[in-house]
Amino acid sequence: MNKLAELLKQRDKLYRDEYLAGISIDCVVFGYHEKSLKILLAKIKSATKWGLPGGFVRNDLPIQQAASQILEERTGAKNIYLHQFKAFGDLNRSDDLYVDVAEDLWVKKRFVSLGYYSLVNYKDVNPVVDEMSDKCEWKDIDDLPPLMMDHEQIFEEALLQLRRDLNYKPVGVNLLPEKFTMSELQKLYEIILGKELNRGNFYRKMTRYGILNKLDEIRKGGAHKSPNLYTFNLETYNKALENGLQESW
Amino acid sequence: MNKLAELLKQRDKLYRDEYLAGISIDCVVFGYHEKSLKILLAKIKSATKWGLPGGFVRNDLPIQQAASQILEERTGAKNIYLHQFKAFGDLNRSDDLYVDVAEDLWVKKRFVSLGYYSLVNYKDVNPVVDEMSDKCEWKDIDDLPPLMMDHEQIFEEALLQLRRDLNYKPVGVNLLPEKFTMSELQKLYEIILGKELNRGNFYRKMTRYGILNKLDEIRKGGAHKSPNLYTFNLETYNKALENGLQESW
Repeated sequence: MNKLAELLKQRDKLYRDEYLAGISIDCVVFGYHEKSLKILLAKIKSATKWGLPGGFVRNDLPIQQAASQILEERTGAKNIYLHQFKAFGDLNRSDDLYVDVAEDLWVKKRFVSLGYYSLVNYKDVNPVVDEMSDKCEWKDIDDLPPLMMDHEQIFEEALLQLRRDLNYKPVGVNLLPEKFTMSELQKLYEIILGKELNRGNFYRKMTRYGILNKLDEIRKGGAHKSPNLYTFNLETYNKALENGLQESW
Repeated sequence: MNKLAELLKQRDKLYRDEYLAGISIDCVVFGYHEKSLKILLAKIKSATKWGLPGGFVRNDLPIQQAASQILEERTGAKNIYLHQFKAFGDLNRSDDLYVDVAEDLWVKKRFVSLGYYSLVNYKDVNPVVDEMSDKCEWKDIDDLPPLMMDHEQIFEEALLQLRRDLNYKPVGVNLLPEKFTMSELQKLYEIILGKELNRGNFYRKMTRYGILNKLDEIRKGGAHKSPNLYTFNLETYNKALENGLQESW
């Protein structure tokens, strides 16, 4: 019996007694660092592939709270913005992970997984290796290792949903430093969207959104003309998060 | 024992043997008729309130297929566009429905419900009263009866998601007749969005989307200048459904 199978056997009664059967949670945690978008991945003991951080739902917790708790345990960060974007319920999702696990264990049943995505401040996060894993690390989304189960699909759909969500809600707080240039903001959008954007159009669109404050400061140093610095106007930014951006329907 | 409690007792073994425990599906089925947006509601036997059409997931079906099957059984319509938008998993969601149902029955466990929304052609649908219900009818979203469980929340979130989705995907095929005027299309958007839109802006935005074909026909009759008729360009419409609208990021 491998280490994973052993752990799951030990925990079987706990799971049966205290957790909802058949439902799991998987989190796609995005962070931005040195002009690249990263997600948090964990390596479960005895697994050959990496996977998304996740867990189960305790009988006494609403699913949103269960997801927050899982994320807090993995990142040490509190009050993280979590967006539930899709449930994943194809047949045989878990076949490649639990190969050596006894058939009668709780985890061997069919599970539907609730997918959440999250945008976190890279610097606030301390990836935590829990009892079930050997590793927990940031990985660049352009250079992901092979993922276990259907986690590649879950990641792809999270990224797709994040891209779609950019059409009605702002992004940047938590991902960018407090003060940033328009090109830094554009770079963030380009990296999330996976494509280059026109500089003038981006500037006009962002200005129309009304979520930026232009500062009386410029970024010093560098070869080119020193660019202006901006901060997010948290009042209009949060209003846009709630009610949609200026330009949306 | 009321009729509902009796039926659930009869079906208890079937549910245990053939369906996933703890997971249900609820569908918000939107149709458009006589300038009003409607949803399909059912009245479960012995229930005092109306509810969304829904059901459970058979062990041998992926969740998406289970949802399609439930909807087909309720509407008689095939290949309906279904979008899974959120899972609902608060505690005690079902308390007001299963009051008279024995504690040890399968349905009394805690359930997480997967919410789907769907846009259907009002005329293609024949609401089906199934074994569990007394009624199944279209109801105007501006004049909904009180809903059971957390179905009001599920409906509200479906409408919110539909509104958000208008920022990156088109709407209209299935809801409008084949030929329509620009004001009819605008009216549909206004009804979904719950607000009036500027006529000129709407026209410009729609034209930029590139999903309409202007016909060499006009709508005859009526007091005003006869307006042009349009159809959707299904090629660009479907491309926009898949890849996002022209104007989205």
